[in-house]
Amino acid sequence: MARKNKLYEGKAKIIYEGPDANTVIQYFKDDATAFNAEKKDTLSGKGVLNNRISAHLMTKLEAIGIPTHFIRSINMREQLVRKVDVVPLEVVVRNVAAGSLCKRLGLKEGEILSRPLVEYYYKDDALGDPLISEEHIMTFGWADPYEMEEIVSMAWRINDYLSGLFSGIGLTLVDFKLEFGRIYGEYGEVYLVLADEISPDNCRLWDQKTGEKMDKDRFRYDLGDLVEGYQFVAEKLGLIPEGGVVNEQLMEKLDLIENELAEKRKLKDVKGGKPRKI
Amino acid sequence: MARKNKLYEGKAKIIYEGPDANTVIQYFKDDATAFNAEKKDTLSGKGVLNNRISAHLMTKLEAIGIPTHFIRSINMREQLVRKVDVVPLEVVVRNVAAGSLCKRLGLKEGEILSRPLVEYYYKDDALGDPLISEEHIMTFGWADPYEMEEIVSMAWRINDYLSGLFSGIGLTLVDFKLEFGRIYGEYGEVYLVLADEISPDNCRLWDQKTGEKMDKDRFRYDLGDLVEGYQFVAEKLGLIPEGGVVNEQLMEKLDLIENELAEKRKLKDVKGGKPRKI
Repeated sequence: MARKNKLYEGKAKIIYEGPDANTVIQYFKDDATAFNAEKKDTLSGKGVLNNRISAHLMTKLEAIGIPTHFIRSINMREQLVRKVDVVPLEVVVRNVAAGSLCKRLGLKEGEILSRPLVEYYYKDDALGDPLISEEHIMTFGWADPYEMEEIVSMAWRINDYLSGLFSGIGLTLVDFKLEFGRIYGEYGEVYLVLADEISPDNCRLWDQKTGEKMDKDRFRYDLGDLVEGYQFVAEKLGLIPEGGVVNEQLMEKLDLIENELAEKRKLKDVKGGKPRKI
Repeated sequence: MARKNKLYEGKAKIIYEGPDANTVIQYFKDDATAFNAEKKDTLSGKGVLNNRISAHLMTKLEAIGIPTHFIRSINMREQLVRKVDVVPLEVVVRNVAAGSLCKRLGLKEGEILSRPLVEYYYKDDALGDPLISEEHIMTFGWADPYEMEEIVSMAWRINDYLSGLFSGIGLTLVDFKLEFGRIYGEYGEVYLVLADEISPDNCRLWDQKTGEKMDKDRFRYDLGDLVEGYQFVAEKLGLIPEGGVVNEQLMEKLDLIENELAEKRKLKDVKGGKPRKI
């Protein structure tokens, strides 16, 4: 695919023009940032792993009826996704206290919450993505009440499904961040879809046996090699052979398999409203 | 524990009096029946595996906030559970067409449903557990609208979580049956809890790679050794060592570990309404 125009460059991804007006290409960089980009590094292999993990999880979620922006993997670092109008919220779902929640409310890391907690942050790097409530969202019109209902319901379903999935492979899903986007139909009707990525960059994943952190906290707090942690997650998910090296040829072969599966599942067309088939 | 009085004997389980008025003991038999007990056999090891698998899944569900009747494993074949007033419904959740649904609606086995289908059957062996709708449930007062709302919401959460869990270990959760029970509070208030068992006796589980059926359909349709299938599920769930033989000593050791874990999780007291801790 010839190199397309760059539309936007973020901390961990670049968005390029897609082959048509309704799609864009997500390119996963090796750059890691933390604490609102105060800490930075380039970690070889991170982008490849996140591309692969996110494609896999989005495909799985699509199969249980969660509409997503993901269309297909293009190569090791790129995926084709629907072009969406981004809802300016970071939706965080927490099962166990960790990170900013502990600091903010004086909780001990590892404390199990009495029920999953859904938090909203206003997506604005300059402001440091501040915590907000539904009241702020309504007042400033970042999403309407119907959209919020759908977002909360999707967030709970995604949490239940992914908690099960990760628990099945020996990992605790501590918390994660979601982003949503709008797609507009022919008559201006709005369809919400899960957007961005789901990867160890925005999920906290703890090994159930050892308690080891397999996510970006490795980088944030210098807990160990970041790529090794992400590779562990990909291995457990069955995306790369255990102990295997991530090389270009292998990943391309795996991409082909994944795309075939996605094709076979005939993923629900979020616009068509046709019965979902997988 | 001294042998207690038998309260009820079903097709696959016996219910004994518990150590106090609020509990009973579920004993898992090796008996297998199908087609409303027209086909029968005794399959050595089935009860042990179901006891173990059900205890594990109930503990997992409790940890995400689904109240269940399960308290703890007693031994290889017995578990201590809360005494409940059984809601006379079999709640079936289906993700993929199989079994009676195919016959009833002319669907092809393996067809993915456009969304999970929740079905109700009236729990009455003499009538062959007939299919009913919410209208029947209301008319005959088997559950009230508030209970049905809770049952449907729990059924969806359980389906999402278990679909993820089984998918993580390479199995497709095709469909499963749930039963619910009522526990009464001090002031007569009602708490609904998940009851009965969740095991390959009432879940359809297909191997994602080979398509092989690992559930009771092996017995129903003579597809292979039933216990081997259940053992495969228990191995994948990490409950018994892969290829390991189910022996009494090993199982008792595993029961101890599971009970310790359950204790550590300090499972939510459905009656207390205290914050859940795991």
